[in-house]
This record gives sequence, structure tokens and C-alpha cells, in this order.
Amino acid sequence: MTPNQRPGRLQKAPEFFLTREAMTLSRDDRRSFLRKAFLAAGGAAGALALPRGALAADAAAVGDGDPAILNLPAHTKGLGQPVAARPYGLPSKHEENLQRRESPGLTRVGAASVSFAPLQGFFGIITPSGLHFERHHQGWWDIDPAQHRFMINGLVKQAKVYTMDDLMRMPSISRMHFIECGANTGMEWGNVAVPTVQYTHGMLSCCEFTGVPLKWLLDDCGADFKKGKFVLAEGADGSSMTRTINMANVLDDVMVAYGMNGEMLRPENGYPLRLVVPGVQGVSWVKYLRRIEVGDQPYATKDETIHYVDLMPDGQHRQYTSIQEVKSVITSPSGGQVLVDKGFFNITGIAWSGRGKIRKVDVSVDGGKNWKPARLETPILDKCLTRFNIDWTWDGGDAILMSRATDSTGHVQPSITELRKARGTKSIYHNNSIQSWLVSANGEVSNVQVG
Amino acid sequence: MTPNQRPGRLQKAPEFFLTREAMTLSRDDRRSFLRKAFLAAGGAAGALALPRGALAADAAAVGDGDPAILNLPAHTKGLGQPVAARPYGLPSKHEENLQRRESPGLTRVGAASVSFAPLQGFFGIITPSGLHFERHHQGWWDIDPAQHRFMINGLVKQAKVYTMDDLMRMPSISRMHFIECGANTGMEWGNVAVPTVQYTHGMLSCCEFTGVPLKWLLDDCGADFKKGKFVLAEGADGSSMTRTINMANVLDDVMVAYGMNGEMLRPENGYPLRLVVPGVQGVSWVKYLRRIEVGDQPYATKDETIHYVDLMPDGQHRQYTSIQEVKSVITSPSGGQVLVDKGFFNITGIAWSGRGKIRKVDVSVDGGKNWKPARLETPILDKCLTRFNIDWTWDGGDAILMSRATDSTGHVQPSITELRKARGTKSIYHNNSIQSWLVSANGEVSNVQVG
Repeated sequence: MTPNQRPGRLQKAPEFFLTREAMTLSRDDRRSFLRKAFLAAGGAAGALALPRGALAADAAAVGDGDPAILNLPAHTKGLGQPVAARPYGLPSKHEENLQRRESPGLTRVGAASVSFAPLQGFFGIITPSGLHFERHHQGWWDIDPAQHRFMINGLVKQAKVYTMDDLMRMPSISRMHFIECGANTGMEWGNVAVPTVQYTHGMLSCCEFTGVPLKWLLDDCGADFKKGKFVLAEGADGSSMTRTINMANVLDDVMVAYGMNGEMLRPENGYPLRLVVPGVQGVSWVKYLRRIEVGDQPYATKDETIHYVDLMPDGQHRQYTSIQEVKSVITSPSGGQVLVDKGFFNITGIAWSGRGKIRKVDVSVDGGKNWKPARLETPILDKCLTRFNIDWTWDGGDAILMSRATDSTGHVQPSITELRKARGTKSIYHNNSIQSWLVSANGEVSNVQVG
Repeated sequence: MTPNQRPGRLQKAPEFFLTREAMTLSRDDRRSFLRKAFLAAGGAAGALALPRGALAADAAAVGDGDPAILNLPAHTKGLGQPVAARPYGLPSKHEENLQRRESPGLTRVGAASVSFAPLQGFFGIITPSGLHFERHHQGWWDIDPAQHRFMINGLVKQAKVYTMDDLMRMPSISRMHFIECGANTGMEWGNVAVPTVQYTHGMLSCCEFTGVPLKWLLDDCGADFKKGKFVLAEGADGSSMTRTINMANVLDDVMVAYGMNGEMLRPENGYPLRLVVPGVQGVSWVKYLRRIEVGDQPYATKDETIHYVDLMPDGQHRQYTSIQEVKSVITSPSGGQVLVDKGFFNITGIAWSGRGKIRKVDVSVDGGKNWKPARLETPILDKCLTRFNIDWTWDGGDAILMSRATDSTGHVQPSITELRKARGTKSIYHNNSIQSWLVSANGEVSNVQVG
């Protein structure tokens, strides 16, 4: 940004956006509903307009002896809260509206549903643990770690059962990785353009995970790595979640994890133990992990034969397409936000690939006619989110914002047309196409499918 | 770790350790108190002994048809909690004891005190935001960001006042950095060996920070970089916290930050705005930041002339020694923990330097006679924590565990004797000496000063 190029203003999307009413409207109705919601939000924005406080008068008016500065707010004069007032801290009360949110009506039972992470409010690459997305198949539990056991059996010399104490005394590693549900952005396949980035891409999070490489544990049990080409991971919750993992992944970077962002896993994320399968869809990161079995063929369990498969144009379905391919999304400006003024904006978003690192992210503001490379934040890590930023001056006309990521293997994120050409429109899973946000002349940002 | 090398067991230090009673005891009394506390904890450990549940019988006894597996715990059969049951999640109830804790008696007023981060319970390098250490000079506030203003004045063409909205619309950067209070490990100068790593080193945290480089804002105001060799940072709370920062730091990596670990700063950490001064002691990371003034000489404010200075052996004091020099500490095993069995342990800890990256960490288990290089976790980042691990087999005899870090500039962490030789014993601030933990034959780990 050059000097004196002051930023424009941007009105946040109301995060309490998707009521049941909104979700059950048809698309056209929803657009009308959104318009009404924006008007309501616009009304509220009047009340939110930034008042000029004592210190906040024009800079020119601030100075020694200015009587305005004597009218100081309480926090500049009084004694605040003591240390450890909150032995475990929480966000400001002014941020209470930034929540993970269920998509009402998506499933019949909240215990077998999804809550989406508010990507529009995140910075950098670390997802705050309290806002990590949730996907439960039979609800979440707060399992007593003293009671939890982890077993390894199958093609091993010696089947073993480990306590949490056993596992946590072993050598450990820590790695930052994204986790994305295979169904993320799934609504877009069928042209249901959900209104905000929380609901289009919010089944995505990124944390520092700590645990024991699964390979070390298989070594400890004397696994047969010649015959044992697969492992089955099994969770302890009632969903009987079982997933086949390739031994190649295990030998590479699969981890039996107990730590997330420096502390123990949260109950919603599998406390006290989950599998971390970098680059692979979230369902394989089995929560409440209780067992690994070494086998010589894929297990074809219910969740990998019926769910998380790709229905192809010819009516067949593909199984085991579990790698999350290169993908990106602009998180601001994004659907539901309103640009209030013309002028400077920082376009920012995130990119990731299950195959490696992000090499570059190109951004278009004209629906894909022209592309410019964005700035990538460092460190750029393997199978991890990468934050990008690019400057933009909005001239007040229609604009279509898109981001297109390329990963270290050379894979490039496809357009929605390219993806549909190859895979049809009946899928739910594994949509990694380019996301488009339309900025209308009135400043409203909405989800459109372009290119 | 080689196959079948099962880990030993380690009993955690009770995190509720330092009662007011304990803190006010003399050192000899405290040792006796610790002994009693350990006995009490040992008694509790009996109750905590891991029961063997249905799935937890010997691996040999687990199999199809074993009647034991029919006796399943509730979470394997029932429906758990729904998604978004907690729109903002919290740790497991089983982790409630991992808290930041005040050191009773350290100061007279909780609003001008410290709470220490429980380093003994952390993994990796990211500090959970809820457990970030606190150092308040006049208590903490939850300031309304709509009311907050940030001013730049002094040697600039145009003094300006920014709203939070202005700042958050600008281009931003995200960086992971440690923050350490200059007084961290301060008790050790005077041979007061506090019992746990939470109290020796817990004024230390590490997060991903997001904000605007201060240089860009100074550009925006047309700062005079020829005459302006210093800036003064001023906080909005009642402590009138003001600190001089070198312009060299500003041009390098100082940031006006609003984000921490992906979300807005926590109130305890300066919400909505704080200065981030990588590598420099925490007091310079002014919280509730409201003003930066560009000047041509250091400001010599109360907090930099009377506090955070180094009292030297000749009775003079040094000012502006604000860089946090290369340092490391073993977080497990550490003071207050008890090794229950002989055998394998993973020695783990953290290292950091205000001058750059960590190049290596050597570990000794014999009080500094022999040293071996530890494994360093990646990524190794500038002015950021680096996690190290090293295998150790305890033979059941006395052992003294030490870690010694070297940074990318070649600085090596000194022994306490070397440090005292140069700087005497009257200091409070800037102790970066090697920490020693004595493992006694009975398994108790305690803080000793060696080397």
C-alpha cells in the first residue's frame, strides 16, 4: 500500500446469517431474503457507526492541553481485572458472534451433523481450537483418558494395548496440517450457492498436531510391512467409524495424535486420541481412536463404500479418492459482506493441497479474464494452509473475485466447468473448484458460479 | 525408539502446586513442604492408577467372542452431544487442572501481577490462547473496538488517528513469534529455586500474530526516518505503559497486531490492539496500544529507567537491554514431576532466541559433563519457539538434566555461574542461563542450580 492510500470500508456479513428460514428458502427466495437481511444489517450499521471519542477526534485536534483528552474512558484511569481472573481465557465479549454454526436442516440429528468454522473471521493459518469445525457421526464425548485404550492388532508379531500414559511417554512429533471434510463445498456441485464462506468452505481447519508417528507404534508391535499394505482405523464412539488407510501414508506422515494447538485435543475433535492423516479427507482422521488393524487389502467398510465416494457421470462411483486436491478460497471480501465505500481493499484468503505445498495463488477481480499473483505468507508448509493477500482498489463497478491455487506437484485448481465436465453434477464430495464472489455495484458480495 | 522399548512412567506435578503457604515458606521449609506434597500426590496417584477396562484387558485377551468386549462403555453405544453444543469450544473437563496460575505473594495487587503459563503441559510450539501468560500493570480490560483509536504523531508530516476498521482493512501479515517477559526466570538470580517450570519459565508464550507492519503505518503518516531514530509506544490502560523502541526494529519486523492464533487478541493480551516487537521483552509489546510517537532520542520513561533494567555488580544499572537472549528449558521431566519407574523417557523442551533462529540444542543428563544434540522439530522460525526432543533411559540413579541452546548468530546459552560472573546476583531481569533439574533416586524432580 502506498502512503495516504487509505483503506475503504467493509461491512461484515452477519455471522448469525443462516437461520432455518433462510436455509429452507429456494435460491431466488434466498436472494430476496439476503437483500432484506442486508437492509436490516445496514440499519444496524448506522448504530455501529464509529463514534469519535475523546482520543478519537481528528488528529489535528489532539495535542497537549486539548480539553478533549481530559474526558478519558474508564480503562485509562481505573484498576482492571486481576491476573488469572480467568484461569483459562476466552475471547472478548465483543467477539461473541464469531461462532461455529450448524447448517440447520442439513441433517435430521445434531449428533450426526456438521458445524462450520467462521473462516471469514480468521487470520493467518492457525484455527483457534474453540472454532475448529465439527463433523460428528454419533455425537461427541468427553472420554476419560485414564479409561481409554488403544490397540494394535492384525498382521503384527505381538498385538498390544496402550494406555494414554504409555503413548504420551513415547517420543513425539509436532506438525501443522489442515484438515478438510471430503464434503466441504459439497453444496456447490448442484448449483446451490450457499451465501457465506463459512458455509461454502467452513469444514476446514488447520492446527499444530502432536503425537506419535503410527509407524513407530507398528514397529513396536512388529508389523509385517511386506504383507500389510493397509491399516484399518477404528473409533471408540457409537458410529463404528472405520476407515482404510494406505500403508504408504502410514510410512510417510500418519500420526496417532493427542495434542492440538499446544494442548490436549478438544472433546469435539476426538479427545483423548485421534488419527492424523495429512492431506487426506477428515473422515479418515478417526476420532476417539481405539484400534489400528494391519491388513493385506482395503476393508471396504460402510463409510468407505456408501459414503465419501464420488458418483461419476456414468452412474458408477469411485471409492478411496480421499486426497484433498489443491484448493483455495478468498475469505474477505466474501459472500454476505458489503463493501461500503470505493477504494482500497486487502483481498485475503487461504490455499491448501493434500499433495504438498502451495507454490502460488493467482487472483482475478474480473471473473477470470486477468490473473495476478498474490503474496504468500510464510512459512509455507506441507499439507498446511497458506495465507495469501493482494491489494485491490474497487472502482465501484461489478467485480468477480476468484483465486486459483497451484501446488508443489504442479496441480492447478480447476474451474467449476472443468470439474463438472470430468465428474458430473451428482457428487457431494471432493469439490476443489475455483470459488467466485460477485461484488455488485451496491457493494453486496454474493456467491456465483463462473468459469 | 526401538521396538519393544516401552516407555517408563512419569507422574505429573500437581499443577495446583504453589499455594500461598508454599510460597511464603523459606527454601528449606519449602523442600520439606514439597516432600509432603509429593507424598500426598503419591497417595492420590493410587486412586488414579489406570484401571483395566473392558477393552483394556491384556491384548491377548481381546478378540472375537471374548465376553469382556460386550461390557462396552456408554460412548461406544449411545448418542453423544450434538454439533455446536458449544459454539465456542473448551478443553475437556479432564484437563481443567491445566491453568495459568498466579504466584501468590509475588505482588500486593492481582491487577499488577503475573500469571504463569503451564509449560509442563504444552506440546509443540503454539501456546493455547486461553493459557497465554499474563502480565498486567493495572489490570486487564475488554475495550470496545468500535471506541478504540490508534494515533501516530511526532516526527511525521501528518499525524493521524486510525479506527480499528481502518487498520483491519489494510494489508496485513501473520508471523509466529515467542513473547517472554524480561523478568522470566528472575527468581533464580537470587538462588530462589522455585519448584516447577510453570513458575521458573512460565512468563513465556508463542503465538501466530496478525497485523499491519508499523513501518507501513509510519509511511502512511510520512514519518521522518532520518531524524526519527526511535518511537514511543503508549498503551490505553491506566498504567501509562510507555516504551521506547528502536527504529531499526520498526523497519525490521515490528507489527501493530490485532490477531493472535487466528482470532482477535484476547482481552488479557491487549484486545483490540497491541504492539508486537519480535525478540524483545514482553513489556515492549505494549497492550491496548493507542499511540506511537516518532522521536529523535530514547524517551527514558518510568518503566525503562526504574523497571526492566539490569542491576550490575558495581551498583550501576543498564537500561535498554531488551533483547531476549538465547535460552531453553526442559519442560518434561521437570520440577515437581516424579519418575515412577526406571526405563525410557522422552526428554522434551523448548528453545528460543530474540536474535534469530535456534541452530541446535544440546542436552546433558549428568549435570553438564556430557552433552548430546536433541532432535529439533520443524519449522524452525525466526524469534519463535523451537521444540526439542531426545530419548533417555533412566537407570534409577541420580541424574541432572540440562539443555543448552545455540542460536543462528552463534550465541550459546550461559551457565548460571558464567552469568553471575558477568552480571552479579542482584538482577531480576534477563536471566537466560541453563536450567538444571535434579532427578533423585526416589524419582522426584527438583530445581537445582548447577554449573
